[in-house]
Amino acid sequence: MQSPSVATVQILKVTSPGSDATSFASNQAEDLLAVEQPLEIKIVYGPENDRQQKNISVTMCTPGHDEELAVGFLFTEGIITGKEDIMNCGAAANNTVIATLRPGISFDPKKIERHFYTSSSCGVCGKSSIDAVKNNIVCKPEAIPIIVNADIITSLPDSLKKQQEVFKHTGGLHASALFDLTGNLLLTREDVGRHNALDKLIGASLQVVDEPLKRLAEIPLDKHILLLSGRASFELIQKAAMAGIKVVCAVGAPSSLAVELAKETNMTLIGFLRDGRFNIYCGEQRINK
Amino acid sequence: MQSPSVATVQILKVTSPGSDATSFASNQAEDLLAVEQPLEIKIVYGPENDRQQKNISVTMCTPGHDEELAVGFLFTEGIITGKEDIMNCGAAANNTVIATLRPGISFDPKKIERHFYTSSSCGVCGKSSIDAVKNNIVCKPEAIPIIVNADIITSLPDSLKKQQEVFKHTGGLHASALFDLTGNLLLTREDVGRHNALDKLIGASLQVVDEPLKRLAEIPLDKHILLLSGRASFELIQKAAMAGIKVVCAVGAPSSLAVELAKETNMTLIGFLRDGRFNIYCGEQRINK
Repeated sequence: MQSPSVATVQILKVTSPGSDATSFASNQAEDLLAVEQPLEIKIVYGPENDRQQKNISVTMCTPGHDEELAVGFLFTEGIITGKEDIMNCGAAANNTVIATLRPGISFDPKKIERHFYTSSSCGVCGKSSIDAVKNNIVCKPEAIPIIVNADIITSLPDSLKKQQEVFKHTGGLHASALFDLTGNLLLTREDVGRHNALDKLIGASLQVVDEPLKRLAEIPLDKHILLLSGRASFELIQKAAMAGIKVVCAVGAPSSLAVELAKETNMTLIGFLRDGRFNIYCGEQRINK
Repeated sequence: MQSPSVATVQILKVTSPGSDATSFASNQAEDLLAVEQPLEIKIVYGPENDRQQKNISVTMCTPGHDEELAVGFLFTEGIITGKEDIMNCGAAANNTVIATLRPGISFDPKKIERHFYTSSSCGVCGKSSIDAVKNNIVCKPEAIPIIVNADIITSLPDSLKKQQEVFKHTGGLHASALFDLTGNLLLTREDVGRHNALDKLIGASLQVVDEPLKRLAEIPLDKHILLLSGRASFELIQKAAMAGIKVVCAVGAPSSLAVELAKETNMTLIGFLRDGRFNIYCGEQRINK
């Protein structure tokens, strides 16, 4: 059975002529693509006698773990502060997930607009973006600093590669992976959008849908390592900070604002993790070399 | 002078022990990062005697070509239909660009909300997303089909690589590049966000800010080839379709919905363009092999 994350298409493969040929070779072939489709996230909120429904977001994503994506998105965007805010969450028709907030959980529809237009009175800047994230964080600061061995860090990409099935077939997916401090892979999520892959992972860790494995990966994820298959942007570090993650490793490069936010939220940020090497951008006290 | 797109940070480079050592080596070093910062896009609109101002978007992007990004975004999102809709566009304080629409150009603030929540009455799905794009396209269909030689296609990545300065230093930027049909590189734009790189390119081609080179790259871009440095998502194909681009090449994989949209907008979509090979996902009639 083929995964709903993968679609088969007919393509034409074109190859340069070798030294003994004059024209390009072309062959009909089958190719596997990562599926991308819209997912709408709605919430039901308000007091028991006056329930309202609101569309929160439409995101382009890869099918699979839709409810986790919705719950993770609501959490990392600060709309809910934990699984106890959610009464239930389920797929409705036509690529829509509806999350029902408990009566009494306050939700201000303007919060969504404010999120998209986060300008403070002084305009937008890196500092105001960082302050907005810090004000939203609900996870407590770490009590005892965790320590991770450098050889655990360098082992992570290979562990992820073994699991990243859809990527292997399509080359088209980003992954987020959660490890414990000894390098055991606990959870992996993939998506065409890197922010969606992380929202799915964090949504799974909120355990609205409970599975035994996930008990090892419960919010706050402060005894864990997050591995990102690509680059580390501000948005990804923001989501990791919301989930209480203290060690984030990226296979690719971080951006300037990702590093600033990681510093401000007392995170260890590692980039260019490949081939037994890595760069520490901040928080080196957690890495035992 | 250092580019505002690049920031210097102090890092710790950590390397696995060789066979004759027992501990990891670590060295202080300088590293260059791609700068990421928020940019707010505002518009001024309405009749001459009742001008209104509205925040349209805050996007995380790399500094440089901010006005082009704003104009490109307004165009590819269907808020303006051409440069003639814009009276002026300029940077304001604190990472904000204000685009002033001509009096008489209609703008419905609900259009923005509708954009984020594009659900039709039947819910969201790939088909409704594709229909929404097709309804927004203002560029005319091509009159005479263009033809591109396969060896021109395979030459594009090297031409881009020679230009992609910031990527070379930071590994952290996506690029969009525009070529003519004989493979001459006309315009390149880079950004931490792939959608921003393309909006900058299309914004430049709208020629609100005029430069001689850009005359060769004027909307509609229907005698041009677009090269994307990474993967091809629905969003990127949507923006290309809005600009009338008929040949899109990606170094990485396309998504399923990107291929569907390319087919529906009569585009040639090429993926995995590297090492003298490429895959044609649709529109092979434009490629001379």
